[in-house]
Amino acid sequence: MENFRIEKDTMGEVKVPAHVLWGAQTERSRNNFKIGSAASMPLEIVYGFAYLKKAAAYSNCELGALSEEKRDLIAQVCDEILAGKHDDQFPLVIWQTGSGTQSNMNVNEVIANRAHQLAGKTIGEGEKTLQPNDDVNKSQSSNDTFPTGMHIAAYTKLIENTIPGVTALYETLKAKSAEFSSVVKIGRTHLMDATPLTLGQEFSGYASQLEHGLKALKNTLPHLAELALGGTAVGTGINTPKGYALNVAGYIAQFTKLPFITAENKFEALAAHDAIVESHGALKQLAVSLNKIANDIRMLASGPRSGIGEISIPANEPGSSIMPGKVNPTQCEALTMVCAQVIGNDMAIAVGGMQGHYELNVFKPVMAANFLQSAQLIGDACVSFNEHCAAGIEANTEVIKTQLNNSLMLVTALNTKIGYYKAAEIANTAHKNGTTLKVEAVRLGYLTEDEFDAWVKPENMVGH
Amino acid sequence: MENFRIEKDTMGEVKVPAHVLWGAQTERSRNNFKIGSAASMPLEIVYGFAYLKKAAAYSNCELGALSEEKRDLIAQVCDEILAGKHDDQFPLVIWQTGSGTQSNMNVNEVIANRAHQLAGKTIGEGEKTLQPNDDVNKSQSSNDTFPTGMHIAAYTKLIENTIPGVTALYETLKAKSAEFSSVVKIGRTHLMDATPLTLGQEFSGYASQLEHGLKALKNTLPHLAELALGGTAVGTGINTPKGYALNVAGYIAQFTKLPFITAENKFEALAAHDAIVESHGALKQLAVSLNKIANDIRMLASGPRSGIGEISIPANEPGSSIMPGKVNPTQCEALTMVCAQVIGNDMAIAVGGMQGHYELNVFKPVMAANFLQSAQLIGDACVSFNEHCAAGIEANTEVIKTQLNNSLMLVTALNTKIGYYKAAEIANTAHKNGTTLKVEAVRLGYLTEDEFDAWVKPENMVGH
Amino acid sequence: MENFRIEKDTMGEVKVPAHVLWGAQTERSRNNFKIGSAASMPLEIVYGFAYLKKAAAYSNCELGALSEEKRDLIAQVCDEILAGKHDDQFPLVIWQTGSGTQSNMNVNEVIANRAHQLAGKTIGEGEKTLQPNDDVNKSQSSNDTFPTGMHIAAYTKLIENTIPGVTALYETLKAKSAEFSSVVKIGRTHLMDATPLTLGQEFSGYASQLEHGLKALKNTLPHLAELALGGTAVGTGINTPKGYALNVAGYIAQFTKLPFITAENKFEALAAHDAIVESHGALKQLAVSLNKIANDIRMLASGPRSGIGEISIPANEPGSSIMPGKVNPTQCEALTMVCAQVIGNDMAIAVGGMQGHYELNVFKPVMAANFLQSAQLIGDACVSFNEHCAAGIEANTEVIKTQLNNSLMLVTALNTKIGYYKAAEIANTAHKNGTTLKVEAVRLGYLTEDEFDAWVKPENMVGH
Amino acid sequence: MENFRIEKDTMGEVKVPAHVLWGAQTERSRNNFKIGSAASMPLEIVYGFAYLKKAAAYSNCELGALSEEKRDLIAQVCDEILAGKHDDQFPLVIWQTGSGTQSNMNVNEVIANRAHQLAGKTIGEGEKTLQPNDDVNKSQSSNDTFPTGMHIAAYTKLIENTIPGVTALYETLKAKSAEFSSVVKIGRTHLMDATPLTLGQEFSGYASQLEHGLKALKNTLPHLAELALGGTAVGTGINTPKGYALNVAGYIAQFTKLPFITAENKFEALAAHDAIVESHGALKQLAVSLNKIANDIRMLASGPRSGIGEISIPANEPGSSIMPGKVNPTQCEALTMVCAQVIGNDMAIAVGGMQGHYELNVFKPVMAANFLQSAQLIGDACVSFNEHCAAGIEANTEVIKTQLNNSLMLVTALNTKIGYYKAAEIANTAHKNGTTLKVEAVRLGYLTEDEFDAWVKPENMVGH
Repeated sequence: MENFRIEKDTMGEVKVPAHVLWGAQTERSRNNFKIGSAASMPLEIVYGFAYLKKAAAYSNCELGALSEEKRDLIAQVCDEILAGKHDDQFPLVIWQTGSGTQSNMNVNEVIANRAHQLAGKTIGEGEKTLQPNDDVNKSQSSNDTFPTGMHIAAYTKLIENTIPGVTALYETLKAKSAEFSSVVKIGRTHLMDATPLTLGQEFSGYASQLEHGLKALKNTLPHLAELALGGTAVGTGINTPKGYALNVAGYIAQFTKLPFITAENKFEALAAHDAIVESHGALKQLAVSLNKIANDIRMLASGPRSGIGEISIPANEPGSSIMPGKVNPTQCEALTMVCAQVIGNDMAIAVGGMQGHYELNVFKPVMAANFLQSAQLIGDACVSFNEHCAAGIEANTEVIKTQLNNSLMLVTALNTKIGYYKAAEIANTAHKNGTTLKVEAVRLGYLTEDEFDAWVKPENMVGH
Repeated sequence: MENFRIEKDTMGEVKVPAHVLWGAQTERSRNNFKIGSAASMPLEIVYGFAYLKKAAAYSNCELGALSEEKRDLIAQVCDEILAGKHDDQFPLVIWQTGSGTQSNMNVNEVIANRAHQLAGKTIGEGEKTLQPNDDVNKSQSSNDTFPTGMHIAAYTKLIENTIPGVTALYETLKAKSAEFSSVVKIGRTHLMDATPLTLGQEFSGYASQLEHGLKALKNTLPHLAELALGGTAVGTGINTPKGYALNVAGYIAQFTKLPFITAENKFEALAAHDAIVESHGALKQLAVSLNKIANDIRMLASGPRSGIGEISIPANEPGSSIMPGKVNPTQCEALTMVCAQVIGNDMAIAVGGMQGHYELNVFKPVMAANFLQSAQLIGDACVSFNEHCAAGIEANTEVIKTQLNNSLMLVTALNTKIGYYKAAEIANTAHKNGTTLKVEAVRLGYLTEDEFDAWVKPENMVGH
Repeated sequence: MENFRIEKDTMGEVKVPAHVLWGAQTERSRNNFKIGSAASMPLEIVYGFAYLKKAAAYSNCELGALSEEKRDLIAQVCDEILAGKHDDQFPLVIWQTGSGTQSNMNVNEVIANRAHQLAGKTIGEGEKTLQPNDDVNKSQSSNDTFPTGMHIAAYTKLIENTIPGVTALYETLKAKSAEFSSVVKIGRTHLMDATPLTLGQEFSGYASQLEHGLKALKNTLPHLAELALGGTAVGTGINTPKGYALNVAGYIAQFTKLPFITAENKFEALAAHDAIVESHGALKQLAVSLNKIANDIRMLASGPRSGIGEISIPANEPGSSIMPGKVNPTQCEALTMVCAQVIGNDMAIAVGGMQGHYELNVFKPVMAANFLQSAQLIGDACVSFNEHCAAGIEANTEVIKTQLNNSLMLVTALNTKIGYYKAAEIANTAHKNGTTLKVEAVRLGYLTEDEFDAWVKPENMVGH
Repeated sequence: MENFRIEKDTMGEVKVPAHVLWGAQTERSRNNFKIGSAASMPLEIVYGFAYLKKAAAYSNCELGALSEEKRDLIAQVCDEILAGKHDDQFPLVIWQTGSGTQSNMNVNEVIANRAHQLAGKTIGEGEKTLQPNDDVNKSQSSNDTFPTGMHIAAYTKLIENTIPGVTALYETLKAKSAEFSSVVKIGRTHLMDATPLTLGQEFSGYASQLEHGLKALKNTLPHLAELALGGTAVGTGINTPKGYALNVAGYIAQFTKLPFITAENKFEALAAHDAIVESHGALKQLAVSLNKIANDIRMLASGPRSGIGEISIPANEPGSSIMPGKVNPTQCEALTMVCAQVIGNDMAIAVGGMQGHYELNVFKPVMAANFLQSAQLIGDACVSFNEHCAAGIEANTEVIKTQLNNSLMLVTALNTKIGYYKAAEIANTAHKNGTTLKVEAVRLGYLTEDEFDAWVKPENMVGH
């Protein structure tokens, strides 16, 4: 039988499990929102809150609104939260109030109760060391803290996870492009044989996609760096000390070591989350790019006998117990599934972003959760794909050479030597007979074997 | 210099081009909504209106609210509209009021003015033969006419265009499935060589997708058959004669020869357009299916030398001037582009459908236009793809045979004869040496050539 | 320091944590796919696998391919899995191979190892009691088991969670419609005052939306009831005993008590997941409906002073510590966030569904996970919204009455009494002076107070 | 009976209407792709082609590959096309080959035939003045021309239409923000009454959204400025003179007066259209913003009696014939419908963008068409909304004042004067009695009327 203690809020008493740090409002939310799995609110949001609660305490103290003792207690608990010591104290779900008020209160309650413990007291006994609302939430509102926590979490995730992951894959693709710079192969347009290019050039296109994608993502960071904190309930900053918004953003930048600033317009920062829409647009762009890349790679690696087979990818797990060479492109599959998810998430975020009302957008948690999932998945999947697939790609030069020499598209090299019509005749005959250009060129008497070898050089057809 | 005449509405006078049939409210809308190309409101909606205006006239007359002369005049103009005689009299855009009021008034004005002409008078002169609001719009509101016109247009388009188009393609794929029933080929999973199946079985999967898709689409028709007419302004049916809703739906069913009925709940029918969301969901499902099918077909047809090349598709236009056999899968491309559009349209419709307010959804025109575009495009693209691609698909039996015999997957047939380990050894050796199973099976001394031929029969591996 | 044991597969040895039931292939997947949180593959899929593994054992035994001892051992472990005893033995993520092979192997390995324990032996020691591949996976392939598990999970979730949740809310809305059947109120179109209706009629529209949505969802069940099992690797059913597909579907239907049948076309069932696309389309439709309903309810409940305020919703948590009557529509917010997610998930599913290649769609896990999330969230959110919001809605009859009587739209009732022009004059004067119709009607001398009260009866304007 | 002439291409003869400028390949496409309305390929793409064909002619001439006569003839026809003289000569549809080859050939054929006329000859007679392939298409391929034309069209549309339209609306909203800077009003969060802000602050949030959106859009221009031209068939630039790519981009920049440059990586530029995905992501962001803004404005303007009614919007057309003050927010409706379309288009573009294969993305036309539609609609709708709605917004100061003074949220101003508990008591009593704060504050004896007026000043609650 579980033990309970009684916590109170303005609506009355609530039974809360005895051992937990959270209080009445968190418990109400647990009971009122049994939607999906428990604790689905991302911990990254909680950590974002920890940064901002600490910064608010420092700022309130500096501006004369909070004692140093209280500041230090709050900061100490925030540091514990950031060290992962209280991960199990945040049981709420995404699907709560759309302002995230209940998660804000969850953090406030945990900080207050834990501070009570740090002050050597027992939760639920004696005078409260810190008031969740008056002290921990001082100069704040859910309406400005949640978007602030959301921006801190999103920005941090991009910097620590997404960008490094994509960059690592970009570097590999660029290195592969150099490695394969002299591997001349058949090109394919409309999925049909076309004029040659190098495998390196093909990979340079992939690298270029990611380079552009990273640039696009970085372009969105300044908007994401803008913090709502200081806007409080409706954006006017009611109940904040003078100078607070600027000051608190400074502390957040200092604690996170990221270039956060106070939002120029707090009304926008509460009522709309276009910065999330904007940054996720770049994540979607990356998903579009990565889907193309992974898809190409699995098609190029298809076979071993009845596919394209121009490259080999690492065998990381048994593909088929009896089928040698059946190396399933599992990393490509994981990556493209991630892309599908990110494209879906982009729509969930758009639907949430477009529906703000008056002074508040109340789709904050769903927007934050989808953003963080996408940023995490793209980063992780790029790392996984990079390590377990891209880095191990090898050119099957024999297959590539055979397909290239087998190709009829090389006939274009003869246009300037024997004229368009004879060249076309050679190609047509080879197509009809299922032979090679060389065989028919010689048989038709238009040129010698040596001339063919001298004139039809795919390596001369791949660029200036 | 264009001539104008003066028309009036409750806001005052408006200059209208002298020669047109429309009136003041249409002209105001033209001036106030210069968004995108002119006349983007689909004509199918106008025709839907023509059906319902005629039906309303009949019903009003039958219920004693309109004279027979007026009924006949309205009906005569509606018939002219349905015959396409006034297509240029509907200049309004999708991007107008979200109730489509202005298009309703456009139809009312055209009917009234044209009736005036039919009565032998000159537009703008003499007493009005018909009042646009009092006579043509009698017992109606934009709020119930537009969704009625939308349902008539959508249902008709599905019946006349989408379903026949998809069905024709389904029939071809089914016929191809029979035609290719004995063409045994290599299967491919994860894009990698797998156990064999027949080309006919592969096509049976495509046919089955469309069969399920058609069933899903037909499941949505009953909701689409429900008509809002009779709900008038807010769904209560204010200003309609007793029995009108049922009666007018009967006339619409009679005139369109389609099983329309009056909506059981008019409040739903005005305030939400879930029937459009529902039916378009099935169109999206078809798009998902068609994308898979068209994509497979272009991959199977890829080459001619360095692709899969198991089937041939018709050459409908020059692919490459010098490259024989470069038959670009252009019909696959058109079809998959249509699929991309339909999937996008599904989102536009969802976004419109979710945002109704109180008694009225005001995203009617955008929902209707996207629906009609999807229904048209899927129908047309299936017809085009069917005639210019699917019907002409041929099996490249030589290529298929070579790839099949070349395959290492057939070794599974030997498991029961010589055991798993010897079978695997054969496959591994063939993979390493780049040879065939038969060569290595005999070389390793595990079986004779005759035994191999007798035991390794792909045609025995394709099902019961 | 964690202890390990050595497990083997065809690629060699793998160190596996000593205490776990899974084996080599699961462990490889854990190491190769560190994407997002661990164990993200939904447990519902695992349970679906447990049903089908048990059914396959029964079917294999009945058809002479498996001993009764092995059948019973497999069945016993499956029952344990279904009882939730091994939930922590399925550590894999969604973002693995797109066929879900690794999750299939995870289940096979857990069953084999657990059976070994049940046979009184120690994992990793002695001859294997059951072979994961040969016994547990007999007559199966990942390619047909994963979609089977997916359909079992999806169908079960709809039946056990989604449909009951939506139905409960539907029942409440219908009951509220009856309860409010005589509460006449102002209608609103374009968000603007319109002719009256009853609050009950307004709620009947909501109920009708859900009724249609449930019907649409049920229409999709037959496709979802089709099971791929028996198709094995490519749909041909290679390596299955005769009669197996039909037989095993019968066992699944028996064990799950749901009307599952064997898919008519196994090629479709492996290479496409249109049934998931189809059913989720109906979930998206429900999301569109629910978003409209929840949005209306929060607008109708807005205030308490400066909003619409026609209804009251329950106060479940403190809205504002100082602001009495600030009852935030938190359940509406949770529900509309769920709607945004479901609409996004629909797109993720479409993107996955459209990209099958040849004999296999390799977006199975992402499609399954999104489907299950949507089905769970809609069910849970409807239950939550129903219990904590809809069931407690009350009409604020005073506010409703005041707004109704204050309205200028009631003037339409006078048209038939004093003519359109006098009626319009009354309305215009009242609008200009900010007074009521009654005041101006009497002041203008067009009718007496008694006449006004007798003629302007909103309750006569709400339908036949 | 229509007259025909015979045109030829490599597949043989084609009957073409006698009077048209297009040739065989255009006619084949017309016949093979009867999908949706005719001539749906946007004219902007044709104009983009005209710029690039002229630039290619100049570059080819400068690099010694084309005579000056031919250059001038090509340039002359391109200028005619750009002047709109041949708009009816481009009958092809979006739903053609996904490389847009047929539209490229359409342009080539029209230029060649028109040049023949300009040279004083009759189409179809005499030696061809220009060869469509050899002269007009020199140093080009469909694969690099279509994406070039697409980028020219997209960039131009953003500069000429989208950005000016959004900017105009931004300027108005900013001006309104200043105009309303002293109109203190009730704030609303969760749609519920909250602390006050000024109407100017509310509008400043809207302006800030558009300011951020414009910045995001401009961030995407550099990628869009990169041109594929010079990549020819597969990106290697086969068949182009040395220096051509750089040179031709210079001419395009010169002719269009826009900062186009040659793409750094031509393989990316042909095989992926991430620049379109990127820029459209910003258009989607604007749609998300505009939806919020338009939605707020129609809610603020709702009424006239039973809504929020804090602002008035212009009456542009009759709302209701008898209902004075029923000014439907039609411009808001048109704008939000545009937003729904743009959000859908974003998905169509993502679906197209993710599916490139090897050296070519064959979803070019659908991506281009959706982009251009969105860019046009957002620009046009912003202009329309600006002129016919935003510019005419007026504050209903009486309503605003009444609602503000009626509000219970102002009680928070008393916290520091009489303490939290007495303040809450006042608010609770007023809520219960349906009275004002002032009435109850005085009645409860906590302060005098003068004190109330002195202390409860909403204008002091709207920021520092």
